[in-house]
Amino acid sequence: MTRQDLIEHIHIKGSFLCVGLDPVKEKIPPHLMAHEDWILQFNMAIIDAVAPYCVAFKPNTAFYEAYGSWGWEQLEQSVAYIKAHHPHHFIIADAKRGDIGNTSSMYAQAFFDRMDVDAITVAPYMGEDSIRPFLEFEGKWVIVLALTSNKGAKDFQYHGAEPLYKEVIKKVGQWGDSNSLMFVAGATKAEQLNELREVAKDHFLLVPGVGAQGGSLEEVYKQSCLKQDIGLLVNSSRGIIYAGKGENFSERAGHEAMELNKVMTRLIRESV
Amino acid sequence: MTRQDLIEHIHIKGSFLCVGLDPVKEKIPPHLMAHEDWILQFNMAIIDAVAPYCVAFKPNTAFYEAYGSWGWEQLEQSVAYIKAHHPHHFIIADAKRGDIGNTSSMYAQAFFDRMDVDAITVAPYMGEDSIRPFLEFEGKWVIVLALTSNKGAKDFQYHGAEPLYKEVIKKVGQWGDSNSLMFVAGATKAEQLNELREVAKDHFLLVPGVGAQGGSLEEVYKQSCLKQDIGLLVNSSRGIIYAGKGENFSERAGHEAMELNKVMTRLIRESV
Repeated sequence: MTRQDLIEHIHIKGSFLCVGLDPVKEKIPPHLMAHEDWILQFNMAIIDAVAPYCVAFKPNTAFYEAYGSWGWEQLEQSVAYIKAHHPHHFIIADAKRGDIGNTSSMYAQAFFDRMDVDAITVAPYMGEDSIRPFLEFEGKWVIVLALTSNKGAKDFQYHGAEPLYKEVIKKVGQWGDSNSLMFVAGATKAEQLNELREVAKDHFLLVPGVGAQGGSLEEVYKQSCLKQDIGLLVNSSRGIIYAGKGENFSERAGHEAMELNKVMTRLIRESV
Repeated sequence: MTRQDLIEHIHIKGSFLCVGLDPVKEKIPPHLMAHEDWILQFNMAIIDAVAPYCVAFKPNTAFYEAYGSWGWEQLEQSVAYIKAHHPHHFIIADAKRGDIGNTSSMYAQAFFDRMDVDAITVAPYMGEDSIRPFLEFEGKWVIVLALTSNKGAKDFQYHGAEPLYKEVIKKVGQWGDSNSLMFVAGATKAEQLNELREVAKDHFLLVPGVGAQGGSLEEVYKQSCLKQDIGLLVNSSRGIIYAGKGENFSERAGHEAMELNKVMTRLIRESV
């Protein structure tokens, strides 16, 4: 998907919402557990319910790997379902991979050739040859961790006189441009996003943490949106997909997504 | 596996060799490709051939994920094969994972509970809560990336007045001790290992890069061994598993492993 396609989809929907698909056995509505493919059943219902209100889906691979090869199959089938039924939605494999060159190539094949997602999250620690193989796929995106939203972000991401996360954005920004590269930008404090935006001037930012991880949508938008280009994908996982615990879980998820969509539509209208 | 068990196994074998199991379709001997489970067939033959000369196996998950859920199954079966037939060998899932706390917990479950490997490699970028969940498994090991052996290592691992990789060793070293924590220590220049050893005083180091990635075994040992405790696992992947291309591929792999074992035995004898 091109940057322009993504921006257009955001404007059509009035939404820059990304929904995280992180299935946790203990939180799945009990009536679904009778199904052999309960992850897929859960995801399909959520996907259909929230698709009108979001532009992206983000399955985190950890939640599938926890169930071994069967879990991996559920992930593949969930991605295939999105592609078949909601072909304009942007799919992010939240995998946080990164390895030496020839190994990163294998990961790139796994996610871009085989699973055919639009984007993958990548950890920058191993440097250029760990990231470049992902940038070689036309129309695909690499989303590099810059500033994350967890407590441990402070441990290394601020290391150095020039904080490491800024160095990451500057260096990685030389290896690809804003047509193939985004950054993960945590939102524990919105003013950090403003600082980050000064370095990542025209890149899309993937902002986790609206909902369970905290962070205010309105503040995030004001500190870091790119006006007409928007430049933001804001993710919510648990706040949406586990909004309901019973038979009406997907309805409740759809409702939460719609509420976020409303706020986003207003923010876009006020700023553009 | 405890640190003492690992050290004892190293002394019994006179070997601190780890063999990387990274199956690449194009390099598998043609006669194996008739098998539906050619990855498992390849791995089983290699495992049996090199097991007498090594103390650890290290499958890199990328090479399995590239084949989707089937590949993941081949990985699970390869690990199960090692556990059943070579139960004293240390198994490292070279996965380079790392995510926010609750997500790292899912990865820890995937690899420690479900696949039941002894160790997993973890990327430190996201800090404490991304690493701690892996440390909560009794008898399991976390191998944190410190200094890697690839070209891109220079991009971020030396960032800051105190190089980032040293800061990683110091901080992570406060979260776990040398009974559950190792570091990845690249070997493009052996004197870097000496510097690294000054910070990671009694941790085992996993050293990649003997063979295809360069690095001299003897130099590595002299710069960073821990005398009686050894404190090193030196990995070789391509140099061993692709030593032969024909029907005798496993014999050739065994021969290469044996040659490394000989050098290691001599080094241990000379130093202890």
